[in-house]
Amino acid sequence: MELDFAKLSRPERYKLLVSTVVPRPIALVTTVSKDGIVNSAPFSFFNAMSSEPPLVVLGLEVTDYSPRKDTGDNIRDTGEFVVSLVSEAIAPHMNLCAMDFPAEEDEMDSAGLTAVPGVKVNVPYIKESPVSFECKRMTTMEVGTGNRIVVGEVVYMHIDDACFDAEKMYVDAPMLKLIGRMHGGGWYTTTAGMFNMPRIAYADWAVERKRP
Amino acid sequence: MELDFAKLSRPERYKLLVSTVVPRPIALVTTVSKDGIVNSAPFSFFNAMSSEPPLVVLGLEVTDYSPRKDTGDNIRDTGEFVVSLVSEAIAPHMNLCAMDFPAEEDEMDSAGLTAVPGVKVNVPYIKESPVSFECKRMTTMEVGTGNRIVVGEVVYMHIDDACFDAEKMYVDAPMLKLIGRMHGGGWYTTTAGMFNMPRIAYADWAVERKRP
Repeated sequence: MELDFAKLSRPERYKLLVSTVVPRPIALVTTVSKDGIVNSAPFSFFNAMSSEPPLVVLGLEVTDYSPRKDTGDNIRDTGEFVVSLVSEAIAPHMNLCAMDFPAEEDEMDSAGLTAVPGVKVNVPYIKESPVSFECKRMTTMEVGTGNRIVVGEVVYMHIDDACFDAEKMYVDAPMLKLIGRMHGGGWYTTTAGMFNMPRIAYADWAVERKRP
Repeated sequence: MELDFAKLSRPERYKLLVSTVVPRPIALVTTVSKDGIVNSAPFSFFNAMSSEPPLVVLGLEVTDYSPRKDTGDNIRDTGEFVVSLVSEAIAPHMNLCAMDFPAEEDEMDSAGLTAVPGVKVNVPYIKESPVSFECKRMTTMEVGTGNRIVVGEVVYMHIDDACFDAEKMYVDAPMLKLIGRMHGGGWYTTTAGMFNMPRIAYADWAVERKRP
């Protein structure tokens, strides 16, 4: 089947992208408004994009059903944000953060999450998340009619002691039990389907294929 | 545990990012050089980032072990690329595409993949992939000392008929059987760990929590 994106509506394009670019890592993004109000909201248009400099990118989609403009406005106003990754244990809390809270309600508290002051940024990180990145905005691209793509530099990291060997700089990734976002209608995936496929060196492979 | 990114080496930052920002969707990216040589290489610093306009972002990391400069150079020279998503069935083929092929070898053919001419771009898509996006570069950011972040607009899409209901514009996402990238050393995950967690409306939740 072939689909010309110029001939599709926005909801159709959105549905096609979120159903096929999977599984997506999830960023529970914490920001603070210039008036000091803390906001946390989940995004799956998110990934690491460079290690030097260490950069993450967020796609802040403005949709009808979610007041996600806060995250983009707060990053614009303060230049700072924290990305917390989402484990199986905090998935239900993340789902509460996705609700359309009234502005006056402390949503992290209502969602049962604990805010801990950041070290390098004036934005709290989430105590219950196994991994949090303190980030400073490098640049934001405004695209279309309201969407923003934010590029942030990671300046500081918090990781659960139980999942990290500091001497070997070794992360026990399976133990983080992070979840990924799948298609619409509330579908996610654990990483229980893990498998190993070692990288192959061309030289070895070239020798192997010449064998009868 | 706390880690100040200013005090870490590049390999340490890379290892921390790829071990914790998981699971990542995988783009098998096809490009054509100005001399007409076709290149395909997998990247997991990749995601959709906007639906209006429909944008995907690629982080092209220049590493010691991979000749990935080709993808970035080809996109610079032609302004075009195709992203093919990676299913369980083509995972071994993708792994071959990640090898350091000599420039004169047709790597798609050697990897057992079939190139089909694109419709809106002069870059072939991969017949065996269940989903391919034809993309035109919107902009590229050069960051650090060699890395590139490419923003591309999706102009055309190919999807396996068996996974798509054209009348309802419905994608059977589980049937795509896409894989995600996990931590280093060749770890991946299937999406066999799928679960549903429906979005909650604040109004419903607020009523519920007031109940004794």
